[in-house]
Amino acid sequence: MSEFLKGSGSPQQLYKQGWNIFKEQVSLPVAVIKQDAIRQNAQWMAQFARQNNVLLAPHGKTTMSPELFKYQLEAGAWAITLANVPQVLSAVGAGIERIILANQLVGRHHFELIAQLLKSTGLEFYCFVDSVDNAKALGEFFASKNLKLNIVLELGVVGGRCGCRSVDDIDTLILACSEYECLQIAGLGFYEGVISGENAAQSVAEFVADVVAQAKRLHQQDVFAQPEPIITGAGSAWYDIVTKVLVSSECEKQFRLVIRPGCYLIHDTGIYQNAQQAILARSEFANSVDGSLVSSLYIWAYVMSVPENGLAIVGMGKRDVAFDAGLPTAELVYSPRDQHLKNTVSDLYVEKIMDQHAMLRFSLNHPLNVGDMVCFSTSHPCLTFDKWRQIGIVERDWVITKTISTHF
Amino acid sequence: MSEFLKGSGSPQQLYKQGWNIFKEQVSLPVAVIKQDAIRQNAQWMAQFARQNNVLLAPHGKTTMSPELFKYQLEAGAWAITLANVPQVLSAVGAGIERIILANQLVGRHHFELIAQLLKSTGLEFYCFVDSVDNAKALGEFFASKNLKLNIVLELGVVGGRCGCRSVDDIDTLILACSEYECLQIAGLGFYEGVISGENAAQSVAEFVADVVAQAKRLHQQDVFAQPEPIITGAGSAWYDIVTKVLVSSECEKQFRLVIRPGCYLIHDTGIYQNAQQAILARSEFANSVDGSLVSSLYIWAYVMSVPENGLAIVGMGKRDVAFDAGLPTAELVYSPRDQHLKNTVSDLYVEKIMDQHAMLRFSLNHPLNVGDMVCFSTSHPCLTFDKWRQIGIVERDWVITKTISTHF
Repeated sequence: MSEFLKGSGSPQQLYKQGWNIFKEQVSLPVAVIKQDAIRQNAQWMAQFARQNNVLLAPHGKTTMSPELFKYQLEAGAWAITLANVPQVLSAVGAGIERIILANQLVGRHHFELIAQLLKSTGLEFYCFVDSVDNAKALGEFFASKNLKLNIVLELGVVGGRCGCRSVDDIDTLILACSEYECLQIAGLGFYEGVISGENAAQSVAEFVADVVAQAKRLHQQDVFAQPEPIITGAGSAWYDIVTKVLVSSECEKQFRLVIRPGCYLIHDTGIYQNAQQAILARSEFANSVDGSLVSSLYIWAYVMSVPENGLAIVGMGKRDVAFDAGLPTAELVYSPRDQHLKNTVSDLYVEKIMDQHAMLRFSLNHPLNVGDMVCFSTSHPCLTFDKWRQIGIVERDWVITKTISTHF
Repeated sequence: MSEFLKGSGSPQQLYKQGWNIFKEQVSLPVAVIKQDAIRQNAQWMAQFARQNNVLLAPHGKTTMSPELFKYQLEAGAWAITLANVPQVLSAVGAGIERIILANQLVGRHHFELIAQLLKSTGLEFYCFVDSVDNAKALGEFFASKNLKLNIVLELGVVGGRCGCRSVDDIDTLILACSEYECLQIAGLGFYEGVISGENAAQSVAEFVADVVAQAKRLHQQDVFAQPEPIITGAGSAWYDIVTKVLVSSECEKQFRLVIRPGCYLIHDTGIYQNAQQAILARSEFANSVDGSLVSSLYIWAYVMSVPENGLAIVGMGKRDVAFDAGLPTAELVYSPRDQHLKNTVSDLYVEKIMDQHAMLRFSLNHPLNVGDMVCFSTSHPCLTFDKWRQIGIVERDWVITKTISTHF
């Protein structure tokens, strides 16, 4: 059956004019992204990067959709960032040519896979390193293969995630790396997104300033293999502060500065909307860019049952939408019976979510009926994307004109 | 590249003897299930059903793996239960011939898809109905297609999920159904898993007793289209009580009694282990079955970084494992360097999980090193399964001898 259907492979075009959600040509729940929203978001972040002289290596883990990686590169991104080796293979298979693996490369099978890529493609590849053990394992393996490997030394915060915690750690690591000619120290990397708490903004700025100080010190000591090493950091919550500290320290004369936000393209109406509002409120760096980011990702689902007054059971659950950083928000209701689209957000809220269902409370002023379609926006796009193998691209009329595939 | 790799399609056999995790022939993280564990679990539940004269229609939504559906049917299951139409299509595509859609069938596109199946296959299909609106829509559609549809009237609990809440609701629904000859009332269905609180066990028993009373009343009133209508309920937490109430009310003389637990085949070391322990503690129905259920699903992941004493960052995150009902439990550590397998569960615990990483605290008595492999058991198999397109089947030596595919 040639269908655009959850759990099936690549769809064939069943309806020549696309799949019309309102005409019930689509199996719900369905995840869709708005073409005009991702266009606006891609342009916004590209302008932010251009205005501030930083390079953009968006984290591809959010969508794991090579079609979107290419779209981001066409909009001016310098590279794609990824989280693990299977993700790298998917991206290279789709033709991506410059990749930052913003994690440690660990495990002999992964070494083999990356070595094969380096031998058989023109891939420009960087990976993070933060330990002597890892440096030795990489050094021995890649030396045995006669391959050079670009490594980015990762610095981290105490209590955080990966990365060297002290100057001693860094120097010990560099000493270990220096034993292996194949290990090309290509720069410094970090992830400030683990910093939280009341003074988070200031702590982020201080951490990035520390990274910059180390970068300058190591540059003076001629540690880097390349004339223009990279400094790379920044998730979607603090990219403005990271950029500000990097740029104001005049690093761009010695370094290529690379930011790696992942969620800007899809955005949401939850945690990343909040983060972006905070960025716009505090930052002249972001404020000087036209417009802002908008949520692009929506789930349409049917009302399956209205078993009590004011309670609708919707056919969308944890299997379909992220729920770890706020529940989805009901935005629109379409009734196929009277062909009427209603904007009744303030009357609806998701009370609870189960594996395949959501419990939606509604006001009796705007009753819901079995068979109505509800459109939800989301919080935390990464964990919605990884629930879908195919996602529809819609125009403003909610007609799915094409689909993109994900590689989770 | 012919790899068993996350995000890629069906793997080809790269290693003739299977993929050996300990020999680092596999990309980690990897999800595997133990062959002997699912064998034991399938036999256990089949024996439970046989001993108690109930039919088993395991909920397939847990794994959405047709290979496992077939395995469950071979072990004696009567049907497969599913949650939505795409799931039904996947199962029918894999040759499953009797399906309970334990939800409402809503939406014209779904009607069309089911009508096509009924016309073109020998599928025996049941779906739940709980509203007049839905009954009318189904009746009009299936009458227009000259097709009969087996419907199961759903009863629910106040404050719960779907299902009629009162006798009036039921009778009104039956009246609506009687307008359409194509709607064949095949029995009653319910889901008691939404009942919680201190007296949950008693509330479940009372609810099931209410269902039985309604079933007997409707049978007397000749409402059912079939001589042996079904009564179907029971998730993985209360199947013993449901069975006890159904069997002790001597329903099996008039009805086929069908239980629908979904998680028993995979099981876990979290919420379903707790539920099963409670079942064994309270129920002679479960106690008389040999042995019990065992956790079959494990995730192996690398230690990527040990940035602080006692803190390991593992390459497994919310993208790889369920986190909504307890974090995964570290069970084993294998060090490829010294080829040593350690059972150090009590020294390890998962402190936090992010999209692609877990923070694992370890005792300094049993230090972890970068490159070590950690094996995790899980809580809530449904939300781990839906993160993987391929899952490995392992023997006791942790060699993956084949893979199964999922259809999410």
